Amino acid sequence: MEKLKLITLYADFRKDLAYIEKELERSVESTSPVIRQASLHLLRAGGKRIRPIFVILASKFGTYSLEDVAKVAVSLELVHMASLVHDDVIDDSDMRRGFETVKSRWDNRIAMYTGDFIFSRALTAMGDIEIPEVHQLFAETMLEICKGEIIQIDHQRKTNQTIRDYLRRIKRKTALLLSSSCELGALVSRTDSSIVGSLRRFGYFAGMAFQIVDDILDITSTDEKLGKPAGSDLLNGHLTLPVLYIKDDLKFKPYLERSFDGTLTEMEREEMLVYIRSSGAIQKAQAVSDVYLRKALDEIDALPEGDAKKAFKQIAAFIGKRKY
Amino acid sequence: MEKLKLITLYADFRKDLAYIEKELERSVESTSPVIRQASLHLLRAGGKRIRPIFVILASKFGTYSLEDVAKVAVSLELVHMASLVHDDVIDDSDMRRGFETVKSRWDNRIAMYTGDFIFSRALTAMGDIEIPEVHQLFAETMLEICKGEIIQIDHQRKTNQTIRDYLRRIKRKTALLLSSSCELGALVSRTDSSIVGSLRRFGYFAGMAFQIVDDILDITSTDEKLGKPAGSDLLNGHLTLPVLYIKDDLKFKPYLERSFDGTLTEMEREEMLVYIRSSGAIQKAQAVSDVYLRKALDEIDALPEGDAKKAFKQIAAFIGKRKY
Repeated sequence: MEKLKLITLYADFRKDLAYIEKELERSVESTSPVIRQASLHLLRAGGKRIRPIFVILASKFGTYSLEDVAKVAVSLELVHMASLVHDDVIDDSDMRRGFETVKSRWDNRIAMYTGDFIFSRALTAMGDIEIPEVHQLFAETMLEICKGEIIQIDHQRKTNQTIRDYLRRIKRKTALLLSSSCELGALVSRTDSSIVGSLRRFGYFAGMAFQIVDDILDITSTDEKLGKPAGSDLLNGHLTLPVLYIKDDLKFKPYLERSFDGTLTEMEREEMLVYIRSSGAIQKAQAVSDVYLRKALDEIDALPEGDAKKAFKQIAAFIGKRKY
Repeated sequence: MEKLKLITLYADFRKDLAYIEKELERSVESTSPVIRQASLHLLRAGGKRIRPIFVILASKFGTYSLEDVAKVAVSLELVHMASLVHDDVIDDSDMRRGFETVKSRWDNRIAMYTGDFIFSRALTAMGDIEIPEVHQLFAETMLEICKGEIIQIDHQRKTNQTIRDYLRRIKRKTALLLSSSCELGALVSRTDSSIVGSLRRFGYFAGMAFQIVDDILDITSTDEKLGKPAGSDLLNGHLTLPVLYIKDDLKFKPYLERSFDGTLTEMEREEMLVYIRSSGAIQKAQAVSDVYLRKALDEIDALPEGDAKKAFKQIAAFIGKRKY
């Protein structure tokens, strides 16, 4: 049902999204067959294209030019894709969204350079936009994402983390890119500066909620819907919000340790998931997500009425309820 | 003796280079201790800072502003550094310039993200330069370098390469970044467009010569001077120009095969180096380098007289004669 809702929502902007999708494909064309194949493989594995959607919607509050909007949207989606390829190397992941990862289908070296190539294409995609603030914000966003990924490595397989550590990590991992998607969309359409702040903050709060829900789904959803094993975050050594609420539980501790040292059996993984799901940790994490979502909705209220505002509201509602 | 000459040459611009060096150190500051350590380790391992020098000299033909020149110089040196960190992952190299590599001192994952971090810092370093052409050219340069690195992987351990393959590879690996160093230096100081082309071509030709000499030195120099084993290119599966001239020699072939499959003994490595050195292949490669150097010097002739022109001539002479 949620899936349908998302498609309906996107329908209003389907033409513009289709154009962006084409530009995305065009952007990863390359004379090197390996790069082209690896990039297209990645592109076709899909994703929700939330960053392009945020760019489109935010741009609607200014003077909308599809051509410029598409450049920014392509750039941001490419940055996201590139960071996923590198994440898969770090996590040694074989599957993502039901598709083999680049590092699994090819190898780590190809994945590293495919990521580098896509990062570079992200740069050239909006290289000719003549608004200095756009380049500055884009550069700062990339930097923070990279810092976030190193922090993620620092934290990996460490059990002495706090909720504060987690929130800082997902801010850099997800919220900043969504926040910048809104802000860059607004900037490229030269939106009135009084609105830019609300859009940026909306993206940030929605991004925080989105990532928390994502981390909840990693526990509550099925392998099939996730396109990878449920509990992957734990198996990869990442402590997420629901798990932080249960990590000191004496019955849970052995599962945590075995997840982190790679000795968890398949049966134990299933037991562990059942245990977390029934522990109340999910509800606590959901409550934090709801706070962020509330804040996101408050920011939307400040925006001028129109289709874009309506769509942002629907997206916020979708994030709160999504099951995949 | 050459070392002395390089230092003398750089002396005229020592103050500006020192400022750029400070900015480089500042640029890799990070709240993550691992990133800071890995980046500083890399920075302190040194290098000739040829990219910053090219930026400074090219800028001298326009309206020189050290602050802007430093931003571009820092960006380009960081791109170079980042690509080296990722190269070391690909080549599985433990030593570079006599220092442990990041991937050896830490691990491949840290090296990948340190590279990503440094790439991002390269972006922010010149993020606020308000000349659209600068961002566009920078983005295109990064893209070509990445493509070059994937081609390098494609070619690795393949013996059926041509000289044309080699020249295209080093164009992307080295010459383009030096060419862009000159062009970006010229652009940022708003140099007369009639000169920009000569500067760009000078950088390109000098870069080709520089890389060929680098590849010759990998065969003719000592482990000590190189800071890594002589013959490393071969051991890493890279065919360079001197080796291309001898690769079908029947006595050489077994060495080549054993280099590429990793079974070459230490004694055979030494025999192989002696064999290449005495084969005439070095002279042939040197002759190609000289042709590029001649072209580089021709481009310099077209430039207005002054200290910068003199310095470019000295650099060209240094490239032709360098022993390290």
